Amino acid sequence: MTKINKAACVGGGVIGGAWAARFLLAGIDVSMYDPHPEATRIVGEVLANAERAYGMLTMAPLPPRGTLSFAKSIEEAVQDADWIQESVPERLELKRGVLTQIDAAASPSALIGSSTSGLMPTDLQRDMKHPERFFVAHPYNPVYLLPLVELVGGQKTSKETITKAKELAATIGMEGVVIAKEIEAFVGDRLLEALWREALWLIQDDICDTETLDNVIRYSFGMRWAQMGLFETYRIAGGEAGMRHFLAQFGPCLQWPWTKFTDVVDLDDALVDKIGSQSDAQSGAYGIRELERIRDENLVGIMQALKGGNGGKGWGAGKLLADFESRLWANAGKLPVDTGAAKPLRLLDVKVNPSWADYNGHMTEFRYLQVFGDTSDALLRLIGVDDAYVKDGHSYYTVETHIRHLGEAKVNEALYSTCQVLSVDEKRIHVFHTIHRAADDETIATAEQMLLHVDAKAGKAAPAPESVLSKVKAIAEAHATLPKPEAAGRHVGQKK
Amino acid sequence: MTKINKAACVGGGVIGGAWAARFLLAGIDVSMYDPHPEATRIVGEVLANAERAYGMLTMAPLPPRGTLSFAKSIEEAVQDADWIQESVPERLELKRGVLTQIDAAASPSALIGSSTSGLMPTDLQRDMKHPERFFVAHPYNPVYLLPLVELVGGQKTSKETITKAKELAATIGMEGVVIAKEIEAFVGDRLLEALWREALWLIQDDICDTETLDNVIRYSFGMRWAQMGLFETYRIAGGEAGMRHFLAQFGPCLQWPWTKFTDVVDLDDALVDKIGSQSDAQSGAYGIRELERIRDENLVGIMQALKGGNGGKGWGAGKLLADFESRLWANAGKLPVDTGAAKPLRLLDVKVNPSWADYNGHMTEFRYLQVFGDTSDALLRLIGVDDAYVKDGHSYYTVETHIRHLGEAKVNEALYSTCQVLSVDEKRIHVFHTIHRAADDETIATAEQMLLHVDAKAGKAAPAPESVLSKVKAIAEAHATLPKPEAAGRHVGQKK
Repeated sequence: MTKINKAACVGGGVIGGAWAARFLLAGIDVSMYDPHPEATRIVGEVLANAERAYGMLTMAPLPPRGTLSFAKSIEEAVQDADWIQESVPERLELKRGVLTQIDAAASPSALIGSSTSGLMPTDLQRDMKHPERFFVAHPYNPVYLLPLVELVGGQKTSKETITKAKELAATIGMEGVVIAKEIEAFVGDRLLEALWREALWLIQDDICDTETLDNVIRYSFGMRWAQMGLFETYRIAGGEAGMRHFLAQFGPCLQWPWTKFTDVVDLDDALVDKIGSQSDAQSGAYGIRELERIRDENLVGIMQALKGGNGGKGWGAGKLLADFESRLWANAGKLPVDTGAAKPLRLLDVKVNPSWADYNGHMTEFRYLQVFGDTSDALLRLIGVDDAYVKDGHSYYTVETHIRHLGEAKVNEALYSTCQVLSVDEKRIHVFHTIHRAADDETIATAEQMLLHVDAKAGKAAPAPESVLSKVKAIAEAHATLPKPEAAGRHVGQKK
Repeated sequence: MTKINKAACVGGGVIGGAWAARFLLAGIDVSMYDPHPEATRIVGEVLANAERAYGMLTMAPLPPRGTLSFAKSIEEAVQDADWIQESVPERLELKRGVLTQIDAAASPSALIGSSTSGLMPTDLQRDMKHPERFFVAHPYNPVYLLPLVELVGGQKTSKETITKAKELAATIGMEGVVIAKEIEAFVGDRLLEALWREALWLIQDDICDTETLDNVIRYSFGMRWAQMGLFETYRIAGGEAGMRHFLAQFGPCLQWPWTKFTDVVDLDDALVDKIGSQSDAQSGAYGIRELERIRDENLVGIMQALKGGNGGKGWGAGKLLADFESRLWANAGKLPVDTGAAKPLRLLDVKVNPSWADYNGHMTEFRYLQVFGDTSDALLRLIGVDDAYVKDGHSYYTVETHIRHLGEAKVNEALYSTCQVLSVDEKRIHVFHTIHRAADDETIATAEQMLLHVDAKAGKAAPAPESVLSKVKAIAEAHATLPKPEAAGRHVGQKK
């Protein structure tokens, strides 16, 4: 099994709904079971958030969305599913009962993951007939965007199960991080809990308020951790002398305060109220939906920035995003693009990411060229100039572009781009791209581009091979009957 | 005092050196005292890193760099300084002695900040004659990039001192976050310490290795915290029911594990060695300088992404960056740009940020238009079309662009751009921009652009006011004697 054909989600709250969104947006059908009377609404809202975020996250072609169905029972939901994800409330007896029921009804080869953030897999799998295929798959909110899933096996979990789960997680854009030994709360929530306990003391003792504490985190180590985590950051702090030097310095220096903060704070009504009031003062100007939206936009922006990191090779979650996009592009040849029709090719669908906006909330000038450049890349992939071709040493480079701005794209607006091939010779492809607003098909901008086939190592133009030429010529022939766009062949400032 | 005229840095290691870099790059002269035999080299290296990072961080015009001098004594260093920053090793007696010496030699109106990450300001200011102007100013590594400085006063610190320190920190791009009460390790290091202690247990007990732990952080809550911190993130987790609901749910659920992790781990030789080996396996493929470089590039990318966030209004550290850039632009009119000379205006200096790179390590196509667009913005600011003008409802929009790619810009390469004004009428400015490689002045790309003056509210072209026209016409007249660029007025694919 190298891909998930059908997934089942048992429990459809914010976590289960976001799992469903991950599967659906990766083209996988999902059967959902949740007896909650509002399950359909909740899952629908999470899915809408996820679709919006993915539209901004990537210009790689998502496969046709999977089909979501709501089952009337656990037994019905898990039929034919090869990944079943349990996300019911965090009570051992409840979870164990649901999992045992899933186990009895599912195919013995199906993987069963639990979203528990704290319970031990050994306890959860106790009553299963096929416990070897059960594991904890603990995700982080928002599950449709954050790529982490902690994979934790119990005493009866097989190694093959964890290996397979890690492989399959990558197909939905997640990194399965394997935790070596099971403990309550695993790794992420242990770390969160320690810091959270300390934070509560700081608020309780009036050292700072919640906004100050958040600012301390987000203006400093939050950004360090977003890309490198804890140990790699401290490795740098150790300098040339390295990690051992850092520990030697840091250990004794912190010994003294360490002996103090080991008490557990009493989260009584007064403290709850204090935190609630401070949080209102800090964030109350935004509604929760608005904060969710801003959070998702920021996460998208961070992942996109990290995707370009390390000299274009990607870093951290940005590397994971690049890997996910490679998979999407590799599957894109299977998508129905009619290259033989006498009409411009529709090549990209994209939502305007808020980090692309200027102060007016309009798409910034240079992002238009990003969409046009990605449109050319999509055309090139279609004619066989894919990652492997480029790695092999040849590519098409853009040598000229003429852009006209005819309208304005706003934040979160859905756009699509089309491409008309004007002419082809053995070295050059002459194209005319258009960015349309999806809502009314109106033209927002056009770009005429000249692409030149190059031998990248020699740094010189070179004829394209017949395998590529034949494909692009077929498109050019189909487009030959189209009228030449009025704006093609014009220079800047030319009168109509 | 609304700006720092001269700063003194006592202690020039990684922290003190980076403070110096912050001051110098904000145009402030720095006098440094450090008896370490290699102080000059260390400070020089940190300054080089900082300059590289700032080149990528912003296209806003940094003022001419301040002058760095090395003093032979503390007394000499602090002469005439209005901000004195102490960054000597973390020992109370040493720091108190140095601070008392600074206090005796400095002007009584000078602010004195300490970089201590743990000592109490009351203890440090004990022997000062003018303790009211002393405070802790605790920064985070890398100090030249991370904008946080924790401001903590002691019993004798005046409120005015903290207010003034906060104001002045903003002028060097830092956010002074005021901690209400002094405690050892303040806020940030308390939080770090709690999580660090937990992390050591997880490694000690073989629950995971250092790489797994770092991945857990950076693929999940690291990215959440980079933009919102802890409480705002959890506020969202509480959903519509809010923060109090979250606490009610989360409190009892974590009560049980809370009672466990309160032991302090013994950081003995075996654990130090284990962490050292795991860290080598995780990060050993990169040297420390390389990791530093990657970290800085990633931080720049994250801050730039957050600068565009919240629909272009900025968020978190990105908002701080936007504020800092506004200050830089507001001061830019004072920079010497000779608008009367018969030569293209040199308007921007920039280094190619690695997050701008494609898989080949070359600057991605659309980033060229970013540099060209920022070049137009710089021209507009020069003729009075600044933030205030735009907020007032008028602006110039780009309606057409013709780009030619003549060379390739590589990651970290220094570039500059020039602008020739081709013609002006009451609504239009016709410009020709060139991107040059700084090393050899070679032309990498050109862009011909047509800018149209608009009434943004009406969404229509409108004549520019005389105040703007007179300035741009003066430039156009000076440029009238220049030959028209060969590439101007050409369309895509036009033969020479």
